[in-house]
Amino acid sequence: MCTVKSRGKFFTRVMLKIGDKITMKKRTKGVIVQKYGGSSVANPARIIEVAKRVASCREKGYDVVVVVSALGDTTDELLSLAGEISKTPPERELDMLISTGEQVSVALLAMALTELGREAISFTGAQVGIITDSSHTKAKILDVSTKRIQKELLQGKIVIVAGFQGINLDQEITTLGRGGSDMTAVALAKVLKAKMCEIYTDVKGVYTADPRIVPSARKLDSISYEEMLEMASLGAQVMQARSMEVAGKFNVPMQVRSSFSTEEGTVITREVKDMEDVLVRGVTVNKGEAKVTVCDVPDKPGEASRLFERLAKADINVDMIVQNISRTKATDISFTVEGKDLQKIKKEIEKIVKDINAKDVRYDKDIAKVSVVGIGMRSHSGVAAKMFNALAIEKINIKMISTSEIKISCIVEKKQADNAVRALHKAFGLNKKRVK
Amino acid sequence: MCTVKSRGKFFTRVMLKIGDKITMKKRTKGVIVQKYGGSSVANPARIIEVAKRVASCREKGYDVVVVVSALGDTTDELLSLAGEISKTPPERELDMLISTGEQVSVALLAMALTELGREAISFTGAQVGIITDSSHTKAKILDVSTKRIQKELLQGKIVIVAGFQGINLDQEITTLGRGGSDMTAVALAKVLKAKMCEIYTDVKGVYTADPRIVPSARKLDSISYEEMLEMASLGAQVMQARSMEVAGKFNVPMQVRSSFSTEEGTVITREVKDMEDVLVRGVTVNKGEAKVTVCDVPDKPGEASRLFERLAKADINVDMIVQNISRTKATDISFTVEGKDLQKIKKEIEKIVKDINAKDVRYDKDIAKVSVVGIGMRSHSGVAAKMFNALAIEKINIKMISTSEIKISCIVEKKQADNAVRALHKAFGLNKKRVK
Repeated sequence: MCTVKSRGKFFTRVMLKIGDKITMKKRTKGVIVQKYGGSSVANPARIIEVAKRVASCREKGYDVVVVVSALGDTTDELLSLAGEISKTPPERELDMLISTGEQVSVALLAMALTELGREAISFTGAQVGIITDSSHTKAKILDVSTKRIQKELLQGKIVIVAGFQGINLDQEITTLGRGGSDMTAVALAKVLKAKMCEIYTDVKGVYTADPRIVPSARKLDSISYEEMLEMASLGAQVMQARSMEVAGKFNVPMQVRSSFSTEEGTVITREVKDMEDVLVRGVTVNKGEAKVTVCDVPDKPGEASRLFERLAKADINVDMIVQNISRTKATDISFTVEGKDLQKIKKEIEKIVKDINAKDVRYDKDIAKVSVVGIGMRSHSGVAAKMFNALAIEKINIKMISTSEIKISCIVEKKQADNAVRALHKAFGLNKKRVK
Repeated sequence: MCTVKSRGKFFTRVMLKIGDKITMKKRTKGVIVQKYGGSSVANPARIIEVAKRVASCREKGYDVVVVVSALGDTTDELLSLAGEISKTPPERELDMLISTGEQVSVALLAMALTELGREAISFTGAQVGIITDSSHTKAKILDVSTKRIQKELLQGKIVIVAGFQGINLDQEITTLGRGGSDMTAVALAKVLKAKMCEIYTDVKGVYTADPRIVPSARKLDSISYEEMLEMASLGAQVMQARSMEVAGKFNVPMQVRSSFSTEEGTVITREVKDMEDVLVRGVTVNKGEAKVTVCDVPDKPGEASRLFERLAKADINVDMIVQNISRTKATDISFTVEGKDLQKIKKEIEKIVKDINAKDVRYDKDIAKVSVVGIGMRSHSGVAAKMFNALAIEKINIKMISTSEIKISCIVEKKQADNAVRALHKAFGLNKKRVK
């Protein structure tokens, strides 16, 4: 039997108990967490490509933990099966259903790696101990156990974990909401103290704007957690916003890159000094919102708060809010909601409108939210003026405005949105190649 | 708080702890386990039909536990996905993969029942505590926990359990092999002391012969466990043979019936006296076997046993065995194997043939096994003679014969098989309608 010979700040050798034997194994260069989205594992051929990439990372001496999403459109296909049975299926059963998608992916990836001669083992969220709360379909991770993963890594295996899913304390399967695999990857990278959390997707990184709208858009070499969070929230679909929040909070080193190229992607990192020199990091657009205007809300203290309290209670997510100055004894309040939710919330909104004695409600689906994001705004003024001016030159009318410390968003007509993005991208000089 | 008022041989009222409250609930008429095969839940429309049937059983006052297979051809589709990645995928990962099929079914059925206004909850094998050994892809059930199921039944819920799957003591997902959902149903019926274990399938019950071959075949009202076991083993595809063995051992009351009709099916029961009056219960045919003849095996004691030892070690399942009388100093040994395994075992067999100094090996895929089954044979003689005579009249040559206490099997040419079944069905008077 061996014993641990030296014990420094970092173990150079660690002990592992397998059955009754105690085995010694050299520490690797550290853990890399790789997350592959649905398009990266859309079919067996792509899964084999992913396996090669994973194997090559292992070859470089890293312990590799892979998080995988469901194959291509599997989740949507499962949801449509459920839709044929029930319009409002119980969320617990929805989680039971859609969590199978990722289970298929991890098994297939483990097979592909075995076929390449690598030792690999797949796990469901439950098996690996990803403990969540009980909010089915949008659960939050409470705790991640590393015991089983560490054991397999120490045996030299590549560990594959089903993204997007967990288990609550009653052993019920939960899912983490759209983009939840990013959260799985970030959470694992955090608890495993990973050297890097790599998010593989079908784009080469984070761009100054959507290249389909702005052909001159550039891939960013780096971006701060905060900017990435804003951009994700505002419509850039590279990463789930909530997982960016967690990554930033725990300073998890991240990189967004393409699974179809070896090119370096965009590093997401803690804010560094020279990031401030850039006024605006990127321009985003979100065409998925709708505007709701509640007309003639009685201008009494508390009426607006009653409105939004009721909306919150009905689980209606409100984004931007604008209240116009009272004209008479009533005021108009506008807010935006997810466009796809509009139909189902109309009934609820109309009930609320009646209860608070407002006069009318109007809906507008033909809107888009155009935003500029950059931590440079904090120390530079005039960004808003520049933005409004750029839009004015293009004769784009601004319907609502909302600002935060590092972003400014404007609601414009949907048909003018792409034009607005191009104008802003140019106005803030984003198509010029810059060092850093 | 309530206390239990009376305590007879059977509890009329039982206590249930939910959180901190103690609730009282009237005992139902007992537990019914229903198992639905893949064709019964092939699509959302059929799942809704199954839900109605389940709901109507609950309505009659039974506690209902439903076991469901994967939708239609899901398992085969998953296997073909795996096949695109690896010809010999690790069995642990295969189980991880194919167990998702049943998880999809249970979730969808729970949704369908909820849609009908019933309280239902779905479980994976792991969640419900179906503990198996670690033989991936063909695991055996070691233990079934009833705690969670009982808790949900007591709350009035319909419990839906994923068939075909379990979990070993290391939390690894296992599957029970083809037809394993039958085993899940039988195991649950046993531990829950079910009044009846109903196997729903796409045929109306167990027939005297395959109606596609013998149009005059009759549906049996009842059959003994032992006969059903033989018939399942011999090619009747209504039920998995292994689960029949367990059902018989624990005397689990069973019924095979159609999920597309309300007609009564075939009751599988303990052997009763008048069953013996029937000489032959049914005729089966299995066209899936292949014959292997090892020629000129040295006629020394132990050579034949060496052959079959080696075959067993190579995990080659042998069915019928015939050894001809020694002509010179060598003998020919014939046996049958699963036809679909033939290609992959040829190499192994040829190695063995060489090692035991046999001269040659020959293969014959154009065979079929025709069998007659009936517990009546035990007390009646002359069945074999009658069988051989019936085949002789039709000029059907018998290549191998194998008998057990309640069955006689003959290997014949594949192209004569259907004719053989019809001849036997007629010879044993099976197309005559009989009382009982």
